[in-house]
Amino acid sequence: MIRINPDRLLASLHRLADFGRYKTGVHRPTYSPQDVEARNWFADELRKADLTATIDGVGNVLGACKSSGPVLLIGSHIETECHGGWLDGALGVIYGLEIARAFAEDSRMRGLGIDVGAWADEECHYIDFLGSRSFTGDLVENEMDLAVNKDDRTPLREALRQAGYDGRPRLRMDPARYAGYLEAHIEQGDYLDTSGISIGVVTSIVGLFQYRITFSGEQNHAGTTRMATRKDAGAALVKFAAEIDGAFKKVTAARSVWTTGQIVLRPGAPCIIPGYAHMDFQFRDADPEQLTLFENTLQELVELSDGRPCEVRMDTVYRAMPKIMAPDFQGAVERAAEIHAPDNFTRMPSAAVHDAQIFAKYLPSGMLFVPSIGGISHDIQENTSEDDIVLGCQVLASAAEDILRARSPA
Amino acid sequence: MIRINPDRLLASLHRLADFGRYKTGVHRPTYSPQDVEARNWFADELRKADLTATIDGVGNVLGACKSSGPVLLIGSHIETECHGGWLDGALGVIYGLEIARAFAEDSRMRGLGIDVGAWADEECHYIDFLGSRSFTGDLVENEMDLAVNKDDRTPLREALRQAGYDGRPRLRMDPARYAGYLEAHIEQGDYLDTSGISIGVVTSIVGLFQYRITFSGEQNHAGTTRMATRKDAGAALVKFAAEIDGAFKKVTAARSVWTTGQIVLRPGAPCIIPGYAHMDFQFRDADPEQLTLFENTLQELVELSDGRPCEVRMDTVYRAMPKIMAPDFQGAVERAAEIHAPDNFTRMPSAAVHDAQIFAKYLPSGMLFVPSIGGISHDIQENTSEDDIVLGCQVLASAAEDILRARSPA
Repeated sequence: MIRINPDRLLASLHRLADFGRYKTGVHRPTYSPQDVEARNWFADELRKADLTATIDGVGNVLGACKSSGPVLLIGSHIETECHGGWLDGALGVIYGLEIARAFAEDSRMRGLGIDVGAWADEECHYIDFLGSRSFTGDLVENEMDLAVNKDDRTPLREALRQAGYDGRPRLRMDPARYAGYLEAHIEQGDYLDTSGISIGVVTSIVGLFQYRITFSGEQNHAGTTRMATRKDAGAALVKFAAEIDGAFKKVTAARSVWTTGQIVLRPGAPCIIPGYAHMDFQFRDADPEQLTLFENTLQELVELSDGRPCEVRMDTVYRAMPKIMAPDFQGAVERAAEIHAPDNFTRMPSAAVHDAQIFAKYLPSGMLFVPSIGGISHDIQENTSEDDIVLGCQVLASAAEDILRARSPA
Repeated sequence: MIRINPDRLLASLHRLADFGRYKTGVHRPTYSPQDVEARNWFADELRKADLTATIDGVGNVLGACKSSGPVLLIGSHIETECHGGWLDGALGVIYGLEIARAFAEDSRMRGLGIDVGAWADEECHYIDFLGSRSFTGDLVENEMDLAVNKDDRTPLREALRQAGYDGRPRLRMDPARYAGYLEAHIEQGDYLDTSGISIGVVTSIVGLFQYRITFSGEQNHAGTTRMATRKDAGAALVKFAAEIDGAFKKVTAARSVWTTGQIVLRPGAPCIIPGYAHMDFQFRDADPEQLTLFENTLQELVELSDGRPCEVRMDTVYRAMPKIMAPDFQGAVERAAEIHAPDNFTRMPSAAVHDAQIFAKYLPSGMLFVPSIGGISHDIQENTSEDDIVLGCQVLASAAEDILRARSPA
């Protein structure tokens, strides 16, 4: 049975955190100098593991094995949120590296191949799932022409030029090469941590529907305009947002979540009645029927609110359906967990989005979670115990061996 | 009886609109080059009306008469909102100029004095009521040291230097000089316009209480954080703001108004639960007891909301009590309206703030309104019919004569 090297795993993970280290976390936004350095370092590490490493036209790093047998693709992402944690993404790519190293140095694994990928910009500094969508063929050039950095508005094309990636070809996946895709990640929620469980066998990645809801009224003087004649876009938004909460609570499922992440009033001055307002609203659930129920509920609220007295408009920003992880991959991860972490694993959906949901459209895919201490992520306090980090990698390696052996002609 | 010159009045009003003309309105923010030009032109016009004109250290323009008898101070403001209307403020200062001219050229008015003032920055590009508070002695130097432009953050001191006003003394009012203060203004609301009435006799200026209400929760991932464990500062704000509306409707008086002009969520990203939120909230009423009732209602809502689950904090930004216009000044304006506009005037409170509320602390003060067509102000569409403009000036002039004759020893 495959054995990973715990010390080497942890050393690589800590080394990656040097690129953009910020207090107890990491600041390594996509295509920043520290991100480019990290990608170069990672490509070198892949080469040392006897993989052919390439950094492509969007910064995807792919390490391809020379195996003639079945090949599993293992990956995640290298960049972080701004002033984020050291494990989000990094854990999954270093697991891939360590598993590739373990397979390469173990003669019993001959004929079983591991490719490793680091998909650019999963954290969406420019485009959602830029790297995995480019690799699987989901991304069109026009989308890249229009994209800008969400913080400083740098065009994506300019950022790629500064990173030295422009002019390079974009790698495209050959689905025939792969038995499937595996990704490990910190949970980011507190379910494993509060349950005292070390391994999550991911059953599905929740669907995510996101909307911008816009209210158009009449800007006016906040003193002289009587309440009865106002068309206050801000007041209409507040009423609507409060109604969402009531209506969604009536139809929610156990693990459904919904969030208003942003509200904008214009002109946004204390003495002026807002003539314009918008809110960014999203909900998530693993069940497509629940997502449809939420969307219908939202649509009904818009119709009830529209014209009373402000015009209301609902634009869909994003509608990602839930992705079921391949049942035999779930089984493989579970069998590996039974060996290395008996009574210390559970099946669970992923409430966060991951590159695996992009790959799941094209390949059988599976995911494994390790606990986030306190459920904290996207923050410099993000952490996981060393025992759980090591355990997760061993379980993923054994699951990979299981999947590959099942497909091996030998 | 005093007679104003309608053509001269309208010509001066149109001339003033040349300084910063913008489409059908005016863009003349405080201390902009066009504002400084307008102040110079206005001072020259005051001199032509036989007044001693001074521009002081904050840009206040004062035209002082040489009368030995009782003196009335008439004024308003010269600067406009950004891309605002041509009458807000301008109407009141040109009324003052025209009335001073009419008194100066009419030998029957000898011994009755008119001073004219244009108070800097009533529109609060830097500080609320900067000019009238400086003139009446309400403004301290420290406040000026800290003030910056609300749009481009230019320090007030730097703006005064660029305008050429730094180093000049600030004029201070001698209350013993004045029989009182009169100000005319466009209504800015639609009460006169929809009632088909030309003259509003202002009874009081409403009080205005303004607050910043802040919500502190926990920033977290919008997918992985369960609804039950969230401390969503944005959701807490929305619930609170919706509750205000319900609670205020139960205790409102006929002309009360309340407004949430600004809402800010941080970090303000669709996929992140806001850990911080604030709203700028204000209410206005002419009755001090109603203001206290609203403040108590708001305070109760804060106490109910605090800690469930976010911390709520309420900071008072501004608390201006209602100002009653002097009863004999109300009477003088009403008597003048009976002569020039019989059955075409009404008593009413001012729902907007005006320099007159600053002067009302130190002098008997009165105000007159003319209609705003469609209730529009702070907009390039702001307008009033020429007939109403002329009528309003004639009524104010007659009221001034009435007030001065009542105080004249002759």
